[in-house]
Amino acid sequence: MKILVINPNISESVSALIQAEAQRSASPGTEIAVATAPFGVAYIETRFEALVGAYASACVAAERHGTYDGVVVAAFGDPGLQGIKELIDVPVVGLTESALMTAATLGQRFSIVAISPRIKAWYGETVERNHLASRLASIRALDEPLRDIGSVQHDYASRLKALCNQVVDDDGADVIIIAGAPLAGLAREIRHELPVPVVDGVSSAITQLEGLIRLAPKKAVKGSFSRPPIKPNRGLPEPLERLLSHGGTC
Amino acid sequence: MKILVINPNISESVSALIQAEAQRSASPGTEIAVATAPFGVAYIETRFEALVGAYASACVAAERHGTYDGVVVAAFGDPGLQGIKELIDVPVVGLTESALMTAATLGQRFSIVAISPRIKAWYGETVERNHLASRLASIRALDEPLRDIGSVQHDYASRLKALCNQVVDDDGADVIIIAGAPLAGLAREIRHELPVPVVDGVSSAITQLEGLIRLAPKKAVKGSFSRPPIKPNRGLPEPLERLLSHGGTC
Amino acid sequence: MKILVINPNISESVSALIQAEAQRSASPGTEIAVATAPFGVAYIETRFEALVGAYASACVAAERHGTYDGVVVAAFGDPGLQGIKELIDVPVVGLTESALMTAATLGQRFSIVAISPRIKAWYGETVERNHLASRLASIRALDEPLRDIGSVQHDYASRLKALCNQVVDDDGADVIIIAGAPLAGLAREIRHELPVPVVDGVSSAITQLEGLIRLAPKKAVKGSFSRPPIKPNRGLPEPLERLLSHGGTC
Amino acid sequence: MKILVINPNISESVSALIQAEAQRSASPGTEIAVATAPFGVAYIETRFEALVGAYASACVAAERHGTYDGVVVAAFGDPGLQGIKELIDVPVVGLTESALMTAATLGQRFSIVAISPRIKAWYGETVERNHLASRLASIRALDEPLRDIGSVQHDYASRLKALCNQVVDDDGADVIIIAGAPLAGLAREIRHELPVPVVDGVSSAITQLEGLIRLAPKKAVKGSFSRPPIKPNRGLPEPLERLLSHGGTC
Amino acid sequence: MKILVINPNISESVSALIQAEAQRSASPGTEIAVATAPFGVAYIETRFEALVGAYASACVAAERHGTYDGVVVAAFGDPGLQGIKELIDVPVVGLTESALMTAATLGQRFSIVAISPRIKAWYGETVERNHLASRLASIRALDEPLRDIGSVQHDYASRLKALCNQVVDDDGADVIIIAGAPLAGLAREIRHELPVPVVDGVSSAITQLEGLIRLAPKKAVKGSFSRPPIKPNRGLPEPLERLLSHGGTC
Amino acid sequence: MKILVINPNISESVSALIQAEAQRSASPGTEIAVATAPFGVAYIETRFEALVGAYASACVAAERHGTYDGVVVAAFGDPGLQGIKELIDVPVVGLTESALMTAATLGQRFSIVAISPRIKAWYGETVERNHLASRLASIRALDEPLRDIGSVQHDYASRLKALCNQVVDDDGADVIIIAGAPLAGLAREIRHELPVPVVDGVSSAITQLEGLIRLAPKKAVKGSFSRPPIKPNRGLPEPLERLLSHGGTC
Repeated sequence: MKILVINPNISESVSALIQAEAQRSASPGTEIAVATAPFGVAYIETRFEALVGAYASACVAAERHGTYDGVVVAAFGDPGLQGIKELIDVPVVGLTESALMTAATLGQRFSIVAISPRIKAWYGETVERNHLASRLASIRALDEPLRDIGSVQHDYASRLKALCNQVVDDDGADVIIIAGAPLAGLAREIRHELPVPVVDGVSSAITQLEGLIRLAPKKAVKGSFSRPPIKPNRGLPEPLERLLSHGGTC
Repeated sequence: MKILVINPNISESVSALIQAEAQRSASPGTEIAVATAPFGVAYIETRFEALVGAYASACVAAERHGTYDGVVVAAFGDPGLQGIKELIDVPVVGLTESALMTAATLGQRFSIVAISPRIKAWYGETVERNHLASRLASIRALDEPLRDIGSVQHDYASRLKALCNQVVDDDGADVIIIAGAPLAGLAREIRHELPVPVVDGVSSAITQLEGLIRLAPKKAVKGSFSRPPIKPNRGLPEPLERLLSHGGTC
Repeated sequence: MKILVINPNISESVSALIQAEAQRSASPGTEIAVATAPFGVAYIETRFEALVGAYASACVAAERHGTYDGVVVAAFGDPGLQGIKELIDVPVVGLTESALMTAATLGQRFSIVAISPRIKAWYGETVERNHLASRLASIRALDEPLRDIGSVQHDYASRLKALCNQVVDDDGADVIIIAGAPLAGLAREIRHELPVPVVDGVSSAITQLEGLIRLAPKKAVKGSFSRPPIKPNRGLPEPLERLLSHGGTC
Repeated sequence: MKILVINPNISESVSALIQAEAQRSASPGTEIAVATAPFGVAYIETRFEALVGAYASACVAAERHGTYDGVVVAAFGDPGLQGIKELIDVPVVGLTESALMTAATLGQRFSIVAISPRIKAWYGETVERNHLASRLASIRALDEPLRDIGSVQHDYASRLKALCNQVVDDDGADVIIIAGAPLAGLAREIRHELPVPVVDGVSSAITQLEGLIRLAPKKAVKGSFSRPPIKPNRGLPEPLERLLSHGGTC
Repeated sequence: MKILVINPNISESVSALIQAEAQRSASPGTEIAVATAPFGVAYIETRFEALVGAYASACVAAERHGTYDGVVVAAFGDPGLQGIKELIDVPVVGLTESALMTAATLGQRFSIVAISPRIKAWYGETVERNHLASRLASIRALDEPLRDIGSVQHDYASRLKALCNQVVDDDGADVIIIAGAPLAGLAREIRHELPVPVVDGVSSAITQLEGLIRLAPKKAVKGSFSRPPIKPNRGLPEPLERLLSHGGTC
Repeated sequence: MKILVINPNISESVSALIQAEAQRSASPGTEIAVATAPFGVAYIETRFEALVGAYASACVAAERHGTYDGVVVAAFGDPGLQGIKELIDVPVVGLTESALMTAATLGQRFSIVAISPRIKAWYGETVERNHLASRLASIRALDEPLRDIGSVQHDYASRLKALCNQVVDDDGADVIIIAGAPLAGLAREIRHELPVPVVDGVSSAITQLEGLIRLAPKKAVKGSFSRPPIKPNRGLPEPLERLLSHGGTC
């Protein structure tokens, strides 16, 4: 089983964190390939940055088409996820989507712990797009400027753990989601020090994607997740253009 | 990895269907044990029947405690699921919960196809308890009295397939959930004849539970999914009483 | 008019509190019979405990069938309420349901004051099942371990009154619901010291049930509150089995 | 116990229907006084008509102040209900509010059967103001111009019964609400011919108001249902002015 | 283009504030006429006061009928707005509605800053009637008794500015709505001192109404915003009676 | 006043339709510049196509930065709208957003009439992102393959008018939104033949944007609509890179 993990951002240091946690989470026999976005920003905190990451992720997914059995869009906020699902004929999951689904089976209400105040609006809207806002207990975030996106989970470990305890004690979370690819793997390290289950986006995504690939769902040929209908296009990267030329239903 | 699959109902013929689909879905190395409820009704269509199945399932889960790494409550409607999650220290999933989560990663809106009109209200309320009612396109059901609960999927195959097509064409479903343990395995058989992904409760539950067991989430020791607080009790089956004596937090 | 009040828990001391408040609330000519659950826990704080109380309440309702004109399920959280409504052919109400309906006619938003932090999740979900979560201003609870469930309302009177004032001043509640059978009757004692109407589950339930009995609604013979359809069952207490043998519609 | 029933409209024939059903529903010892609005329209179908009926009802409630222990605003749609609750120091209920609360204790989902297509939007918004739209299965209405508002329930009896059956069979209603003061009493007549409980606004209101009066809730002196704060006013009917001069909290 | 701005309250000093801000906001060539309610209260904080203002506004709109191309109901809370829209054949807007729509195009979540604690419930319900409660970050209000409704914006300028900063910093508002006709024009003065866009009801209403008038939408002749159907009425002011005699559809 | 109207798609024929309607809607003195996306598809029906249009629109907005006082993103579905709002320091509106806001001031519930079945899911999700799904009566669409996107409004005029009547008669819409840039201007032509107000995205957007520009809202310097924080980026078009280098708050 081959899984393509797309980092929608340009940070190689974050790609390394993602790769490590993906590898740790994968079943024996699963091959993980991590691709870093060829253009974009260092990490996504806003709707605009997500818009760029969405297009970059779609380009990567198209370019590597045929080399994988499933795709992970590996930024919290799931840039472009639903669009890429239309395009691609194998399962595609996102970090937020997977973390929410894992959390939803471990408790009724969950909180998100994140790396910056600015990121909270975008994460909140991502939960809304999953229609799970009424199960979101809170989003709490670090409130200092980050020194280095590649080492944020170590630089702020104790503050992040304090936020985790707060969402349980003050916000009534049954489950903690540690959010954002820069925090990939932190849940694994600190989970025994916390009083409720802790969910990580990367390991949730790998685990769920492996399950989906085994279930082998058919690509939709009707409805809103079938391929976009064939129609004129212009100026798109050749791999995108090629995929669009297969077309779906109207 | 050992998985206990509890049929909350008394029908051995349905247990056999569940067992077969669970076995087909499990990874190599996973051991499946199916337990049929010692008391209750033939299959659950109503809130009252679910109330009985909930207690029966809890009794079975307690009695077999220590023999499994995870539990599936194998009736659509998930009788007692949230309560049993409090009680047990390993992951517990239900057919509806698992089917919804799988469906939610395959599309934005899903429909449920079921075996009787009476069952629709109970299924609808189960989706509500998962807070996913706004993603439910419809519930459609067979409307004739069933001949035999053990053979319903073969007796009504063409009618069920017609319902599946209707939820796509008329209700806008991106994904079809074929619901109810008596239909376990039907999705696998007819999925290539349908235009969108088809989700089955049993295979979703086995797949997701295997993933959860691998993620090894900690049992909550705080919050609403920790064990019920220790307090006086009376007249409970000994295995339940024993589990309750461990207690959780207030 | 004969009303059966079922305490879904095993605490005789709580049954006595319920009985006293039920008697004070009843109209002349109403006969109140209180039945204590033959099995279960001392008081319900969690989903699991509610699951047990649900089955115990159903058993009691079936056993006493024919001796009453209406039933109160007398634990906040309404264990098994909707299922028992299907089974029984006379009106059945619960403490939460009744308190919410009374509160909803006295104001737009209400808060719940309760006896333990653990109980908050279960109460919140009960309000959700009534689809009134958007009118819930808050749930506040005592946060110390209880000395004695039979005397909690006297042991913590001033703390409970402080919580009542907080939900008005800080949470914007128009109405206070004092929740939980162990607090039955407290509202009556302290209501003149509080700035907004105070609602008690037991007195609301008795009053509303008397009204429903007078309105004499027909037992549904169609739809999701008609009797469960007749089908094979096994291992149920004889009174339950007998009621199920009458059957409803599919 | 003295109950003032305000018909917010000018139709004496409808007042007579209301009076008859109120009398039939009242307990022995309850005195019913029906007051017809001194200005307004024949019956309310729209938001504008409700706005007029709201002011007329408030004027009547103020004028008769001191002569009653509770008030019913007796038009479906509850014109002015929440405002009048602020003003008056005894319980005030409306037909819709009461019917919804009764229906909510008899089933999970309910439908409304009404007298004209135009009225459906206003009724739907009234259910929304009660935050119960998610439990509304449907609103169905007569679609012919009415001959005479005083005899509508007899002129269209069979059509109304057909609508009642439709909401059960096609819309999944557990309970039918027959809506609108012009239909007062119809539920009582046809309920044995229908397969689920049928709720009438007037009898629900009288029954619930009697219960509330017995519960004797305190008038709020804080929060949004205390009296409007004292402030300058001009041009109001003297009884309104007098009531406003008592004032509440800011 | 002639715009009638109705102050639903009797305060001439507030009418003057409204007039000034309306004039400042209007395009060249727009004529503004402000009418003060002939009866009612000094300013609206509660549902009851809104009920009076609704009827007063309707009377004014009817009396001036024929002299305007559009109407602003100029109290936050939009008393009678939806009813008056049915009655009148040109566009009618309210301060809350307009402010919400402006805010919704400037950000995803908005907060309301208001003049008294009592007013918060009424404003909250007005946002709900617009179905935008899930985009409301918070409502914050002055908590001291007001000295003079005509000078509140100057008497409490610094406290109001502090509230504006709080809704951004603590509640996550993208946009601030300064609410209530007594604060008309304040947004214009302090907007450069605040970190996010500030919306004023009067200027939003004038701007949006000018736009609507230019779009020249047809008066509905079907559906719930067509004129109320013709039917008997009694005791209404002659201008209202005249408008009602034109009638709409059933 | 200079307005940039971005067609997020590559169809010059659609740009011409947009230009014509924008011109007809603009006030004297407003200059309209229409820019067609340099890359993308012919028209957007799906999430994937919207993802491409979002990035293309952002590129155009950045490239033309400094030449406009406001921006219209002129495809229904508002591709990239919220992200572009973060980036740009003058008001930005979208066709759906504007049409919804206009419709919301003309009635309580609205329907959308569109050009293809496939487009319905994407439009529905766009309404959800505006949090107005509960006011959406229906979406109805042409169901035949389109001959020519530039002439769809004339090729299918009578079918579109029939859909408009259906949403009023069958779905209870108070207002009709004719959706999609290819239908720009159709509302203006047929509005007198329809029984309720008809809203067009382009004219709504131009009108509302002119109003916003006159209100001159401050660019947020805090919160989720301030500029994205400065951070490393790579491979972006130079105009985007330049805008991002100004940065906002964290």
